Amino acid sequence: MAFSTPWARNCARTNSKNRPMDEIERRGRHDIHGETDIIRNIFAPLAKEVEGAFGLIDDAALVTAAPGEELVLTADMLVAGVHFLPHGAPVDTGYKALGVNVSDLIAKGADPAGYLLSIALSGKPDIAWLNGLKEGLAEAQADFGCLLTGGDTVSTPGPLCLSVTAFGRIPTGKMVMRSGARPGDRVYVTGTIGDAAAGLKILQSRPDGAGDALGEADRAFLLSRYRRPRPQPVLAPILRAHASGAMDISDGLAGDFAKLCAASECGGAIDAARVPLSGPAQKAMDAGVVSLEELLCGGDDYEALASVPDDHCAAFENEVNAAGLHTVKIGMIDDGNQVSVLDETGNRMLFSRPGFDHF
Amino acid sequence: MAFSTPWARNCARTNSKNRPMDEIERRGRHDIHGETDIIRNIFAPLAKEVEGAFGLIDDAALVTAAPGEELVLTADMLVAGVHFLPHGAPVDTGYKALGVNVSDLIAKGADPAGYLLSIALSGKPDIAWLNGLKEGLAEAQADFGCLLTGGDTVSTPGPLCLSVTAFGRIPTGKMVMRSGARPGDRVYVTGTIGDAAAGLKILQSRPDGAGDALGEADRAFLLSRYRRPRPQPVLAPILRAHASGAMDISDGLAGDFAKLCAASECGGAIDAARVPLSGPAQKAMDAGVVSLEELLCGGDDYEALASVPDDHCAAFENEVNAAGLHTVKIGMIDDGNQVSVLDETGNRMLFSRPGFDHF
Repeated sequence: MAFSTPWARNCARTNSKNRPMDEIERRGRHDIHGETDIIRNIFAPLAKEVEGAFGLIDDAALVTAAPGEELVLTADMLVAGVHFLPHGAPVDTGYKALGVNVSDLIAKGADPAGYLLSIALSGKPDIAWLNGLKEGLAEAQADFGCLLTGGDTVSTPGPLCLSVTAFGRIPTGKMVMRSGARPGDRVYVTGTIGDAAAGLKILQSRPDGAGDALGEADRAFLLSRYRRPRPQPVLAPILRAHASGAMDISDGLAGDFAKLCAASECGGAIDAARVPLSGPAQKAMDAGVVSLEELLCGGDDYEALASVPDDHCAAFENEVNAAGLHTVKIGMIDDGNQVSVLDETGNRMLFSRPGFDHF
Repeated sequence: MAFSTPWARNCARTNSKNRPMDEIERRGRHDIHGETDIIRNIFAPLAKEVEGAFGLIDDAALVTAAPGEELVLTADMLVAGVHFLPHGAPVDTGYKALGVNVSDLIAKGADPAGYLLSIALSGKPDIAWLNGLKEGLAEAQADFGCLLTGGDTVSTPGPLCLSVTAFGRIPTGKMVMRSGARPGDRVYVTGTIGDAAAGLKILQSRPDGAGDALGEADRAFLLSRYRRPRPQPVLAPILRAHASGAMDISDGLAGDFAKLCAASECGGAIDAARVPLSGPAQKAMDAGVVSLEELLCGGDDYEALASVPDDHCAAFENEVNAAGLHTVKIGMIDDGNQVSVLDETGNRMLFSRPGFDHF
């Protein structure tokens, strides 16, 4: 039995004055050796450029919003064996833990800024694993512009658990709501859909090799899409300028589209044939590795799903393309009661499980 | 294998227009029945007065800082069997999860405002347990003025895990740092020290009954102090007005005092005889239930430890007393190299374990 031990509670005297430690301090340092080392060597370097993180030696972080700016906060928890493969590379786990949170911020039109990371470690800390985690977080920080600002580290008798709370900045009043879609708005997705679902299918089917029908490069692409969500910060200002409603696609396009419509109290339809698939995902489907339903309902895409009013569509498309990204119009919001995914003949597709649920 | 499922991703169409659900929506609702119910019935009511929480149906929360105001963020993670007794009352678990976070905010001089809660549930949700958790969170919200603003709910094969990120508001530049103590400052604690450590000792010694030497009322007091941290929001403005440095006492007074001195690059000494003990804690020590070392090093106090410049001491004491709370001057910060706890004869006390560490 014990109690919470934020990083900041485990600081030890800095040696800047090169003074001997006192008795309590030395004993304290000995007792907290492992935890202090983790904070100092693994996490503090990730926070070193953040003024309000205080080198992770205080109890809390300080965040300032500029005049005319609001903060968007989002939280995602990842459990080993549930959200990532327990024996996967820690560098990917670190990257994904930050990526899935940044994905929410971007879909709301917020510019990623910082995050707090709480981690429950199983048993004695594995320094090699933690260094891998640190590397993945550092890569994600560089890609997303979202820096470690605080957190907590504890032990658990259960599987490793990572809890990230990320925050982003947005001009006042500009957050893109899930409830903002309106009849007549066009429905867009960014990037390609279903790659991660295909990647997970390949991972799960090994070593019997359902993915062996694919070439190595295609497999690697799909696995990478599962392991490393790549939300695009450059989308945030474009979404807040043009989207009436948006969310990220994490639990499957079909189910998430239904949620967007539900929150907006609208109906809507998307054409399955218009949903952008990558070459490797198309090949995986053609080879029978994965079904169209699995691509549309599998989740882990971490692309943006947005409703865009008709008079913003051209600007939206142009700005996304100018940013070097892709977006495709896949459907429309209407004032009906139905949310549909239509096949190439215009018939509604029925899915056994349009989205993921934990329970 | 799956992926993150924030509360907001599990909204379903509101029935305000009393329309039939569409096919996907109905199937989606059926699939996510458990999770949707948890969000709607357990968590959404806790967020209903928070404008930026959007009823927990969006992907993120919106937080605004007034001009001249900064946000203080802190994170604490609690694991069943590590931070709270797995078979303890869920109402206490909920109260404590918020209380330990609010304690950090108050010690920094910040007024508690809101929190995000991520929860990993073991197996199928136990609705009775979740209702207890909700009740405890609601009581803590009322006591601390800190309201649910967002979060995430996932499943885990391991023990229950709660991760709270709380935020508070503070006038710009007024955060009370752990590193702010200066030689000559007086050292104060609020409330009484060691009650929770004695309470935990009693809990752990049952059913063989180490606590039976105490009366029922004393036992109940000490257990309550372990189960329900009671940081006092009224202290926040007093600390930011008068304290040069502060932190909350969570890992034991002796070790936390060493950390305050370390962060401030100062020495310091506290007199053990001046450390305020409650009547029940004094009795527990007299009866041999708990030692002085355990009271001073046990942790879970969630009281404030502050350094106060000499010319602020009278005002600090007066304002704390006027707020109906207690504070005691227990020592002083100096420019030496030692951090000491002195016994009644002025000798340094030595502790086998001045504070808690996870590893």
